[in-house]
Amino acid sequence: MTHFDYLNNDTICALSTAPGMAAIAVFRLSGSEAVAIALNIFSARSREFQQGRIVSHKAYLGSVYDKGELLDEVLLTVFKGPHSYTGEDVVEISCHGSVYVQQRLFSLVLEAGARPATAGEFTMRAFARQRLDLSQAEAVADLIASNSKSTHDLAIKQMRGGFSEKIAGLRQKLVDFASLIELELDFAEEDVEFADRKEFLQLIGEIKAEILSLSQSFQTGNVLKSGIPVAIIGRPNVGKSTLLNTLLNEEKAIVSEIPGTTRDAIEDTIVIGGYNFRFIDTAGLRQSDDLIENIGIERTYEKINQASIILYVCDLSSCNKELAEEMLDEFKSLMKDESKKFILIGNKIDQIKETPSHFSEMVDLETIFISAKRKENIQLVSDSLLRSVRESAAQADTIVSNARHYHALMKAGEAMEEVENGLLHNIPTDLIASDLRKALHHLGTITGQVYTNELLGNIFSKFCIGK
Amino acid sequence: MTHFDYLNNDTICALSTAPGMAAIAVFRLSGSEAVAIALNIFSARSREFQQGRIVSHKAYLGSVYDKGELLDEVLLTVFKGPHSYTGEDVVEISCHGSVYVQQRLFSLVLEAGARPATAGEFTMRAFARQRLDLSQAEAVADLIASNSKSTHDLAIKQMRGGFSEKIAGLRQKLVDFASLIELELDFAEEDVEFADRKEFLQLIGEIKAEILSLSQSFQTGNVLKSGIPVAIIGRPNVGKSTLLNTLLNEEKAIVSEIPGTTRDAIEDTIVIGGYNFRFIDTAGLRQSDDLIENIGIERTYEKINQASIILYVCDLSSCNKELAEEMLDEFKSLMKDESKKFILIGNKIDQIKETPSHFSEMVDLETIFISAKRKENIQLVSDSLLRSVRESAAQADTIVSNARHYHALMKAGEAMEEVENGLLHNIPTDLIASDLRKALHHLGTITGQVYTNELLGNIFSKFCIGK
Repeated sequence: MTHFDYLNNDTICALSTAPGMAAIAVFRLSGSEAVAIALNIFSARSREFQQGRIVSHKAYLGSVYDKGELLDEVLLTVFKGPHSYTGEDVVEISCHGSVYVQQRLFSLVLEAGARPATAGEFTMRAFARQRLDLSQAEAVADLIASNSKSTHDLAIKQMRGGFSEKIAGLRQKLVDFASLIELELDFAEEDVEFADRKEFLQLIGEIKAEILSLSQSFQTGNVLKSGIPVAIIGRPNVGKSTLLNTLLNEEKAIVSEIPGTTRDAIEDTIVIGGYNFRFIDTAGLRQSDDLIENIGIERTYEKINQASIILYVCDLSSCNKELAEEMLDEFKSLMKDESKKFILIGNKIDQIKETPSHFSEMVDLETIFISAKRKENIQLVSDSLLRSVRESAAQADTIVSNARHYHALMKAGEAMEEVENGLLHNIPTDLIASDLRKALHHLGTITGQVYTNELLGNIFSKFCIGK
Repeated sequence: MTHFDYLNNDTICALSTAPGMAAIAVFRLSGSEAVAIALNIFSARSREFQQGRIVSHKAYLGSVYDKGELLDEVLLTVFKGPHSYTGEDVVEISCHGSVYVQQRLFSLVLEAGARPATAGEFTMRAFARQRLDLSQAEAVADLIASNSKSTHDLAIKQMRGGFSEKIAGLRQKLVDFASLIELELDFAEEDVEFADRKEFLQLIGEIKAEILSLSQSFQTGNVLKSGIPVAIIGRPNVGKSTLLNTLLNEEKAIVSEIPGTTRDAIEDTIVIGGYNFRFIDTAGLRQSDDLIENIGIERTYEKINQASIILYVCDLSSCNKELAEEMLDEFKSLMKDESKKFILIGNKIDQIKETPSHFSEMVDLETIFISAKRKENIQLVSDSLLRSVRESAAQADTIVSNARHYHALMKAGEAMEEVENGLLHNIPTDLIASDLRKALHHLGTITGQVYTNELLGNIFSKFCIGK
């Protein structure tokens, strides 16, 4: 039983390990002819294998011949369908990782009747044979692309199917009610109500709430996936670039003594405690006659808008009472945006004997005192960043990190809104049924109960070849 | 039973596939604790596995946990020693090829008690446990590095052990005689001869001949391994660079109408019919006042010396009788060097109506007529190159391609010469025994019956990690 009526029965092959010279390389074949093709080029030492009793999941040592000449000694494992990744017969060939051997082996397999797999085609077949649903398939690509704990954890949770189950659960509840509504349409002339409107409204409320909570988790999920944007802002020459450099531990920004050195917003990503942080260094916030610098300052405000976390840096060594008041006013006015986290940093502690009294008196905010130059207390900044992220990550148990899922949830939410309005305003059942179908459709696209070839093409083209 | 008394019993681990993001990546563990370490981080779905009945060579699907959190779903295969590559217990873990998963999985394995394998350490253990001898081990590295049919074929023959057997055979014959000679030393005072001198001399002759034939094959072997050097020579502006470009199928050399454009010897390698050819484009052979060009011409003669095959190019379009005679004399004088193959090429057939009569009359040599510019008859040049190589490759059934083996053979040959001289001149038996031991030693270093730690270090450090 497959999703696709048109599912090809041909056999695909690809190098599944990274390209290049290595100790070993692994090729995978999948399809009805996978075993036959393997037998065509491979002869095992095992008598059992020679006699055709090939045990599934067992690695056989043997030789691959190229026109009668030994090409390589390989390990070959057959995974008989449906107990394989794709659900079809799968053969894995583990050869020596020579570039020549890889090229020849691939050619031999193609000559024997396989064709090169397209990107993600193994996983597409796994989806077609319902080994996993569409959101799980997408998670496989996310897992492979993951380069930090946070992106990995998002992907593996989704791959395990928690999210799929949640969506399937929502959808099932709706399906049950939708079928009652459709039944009413069949008996439209008799004006009966099979579906209890009160119960239905309550269910809709629940589903809307779940959809809302899932779509709200997208901001967190998206940010975790693409890197949490952190803007470092403050007056010119307070040490923003130095702090960035210290955090990045490499010289990405030009550091100089001259105020206004940093004109471009320089971005770089580091992993702290398993989370990707995308740091944004910005031009100093000050009035300037320099046109280019003013463009930089304008960009700073744009960057502040994009950031989830703001590091506001003050220079303690040149902080008179007037300036301190001005800066704190600025900081507090920024803090009105509750969607962001703000961290106040007093820099250059190496240049002062004690915290300026007017500063500490005025500040009723938690401040981290550091020396970016001497790398003092930088750990406190990292810890504070991590705390900010963990707070938002902890809020949601299931996090939506895929823009496609987010948009489908939004669309489903809108349709549910229409259904609710329709029920409240006694709109004809056929219109309600139509909105219900829309909601079901959008939820169905997430897990792949509903799909178009274009959608599948889009999703699987982003995979690497061999998966 | 191992070669090494000091063989570590610890467990090593390495990524055996190429680094980078891919569908899958494979880690290998080898050592007495390999299975215990794997069990520490992996839990299989199979009940058989859970109950501790782990079948060797069987791939188990399961999960790797990192401090209680799911890191990845992997395939794990145990190869119980001695039926494994190293002869020890080996575990292969095939995980998703995410960079993060690879890093974490490697850390987990190390935390569980493995240590990172050094370059070639798996193969070194295979050697230590006599799964293969030293020349076979070296062939594994050659096989992995092979990028053409010829380098591959050399490596795989050596890996299969044909060369090893030959050396072992030679050595065994010598060992038998050497033990008789050593016996004579024990009974030195009684002046007996256990070893028949005549028989011995005959044997030495045979062994010397075999050593000679093997060491002669080194030139071919070395050339096959590093690319067969082909020099393209001829007068200025006869189309040498154009021919090189046509052969390379890309614009590596600057082609112009001005005689003397090519001043540096430009090298490039292409694979023709499975053989690596290393083409050497050279400055034109002519008298010149240009200092730099003269340096180029001098280099041309150096390049001719290094080359195995010489392509001598004539321009048929500007070939008057005098010039033709001059060139042919030059060509014939070069041909006196019998260690090289010479191919005479008449270029620019597109610019002439028929072969100049004085040229065809004079030439009693096989000539290939081409147009390098129009890419006409280039295939004939390729065919001729291939024929030249196949002739020399066919001469030897076992080809020595490793410089270390070649030098050991030379040393063994020298020692055998000394033994022969000693026998012919009735030199005392103890001196003959000493030369015999030398010959045995040098032959033994090839297959690794004799080795030093330094030698092993040298050999295995050239391997890639994970093999």
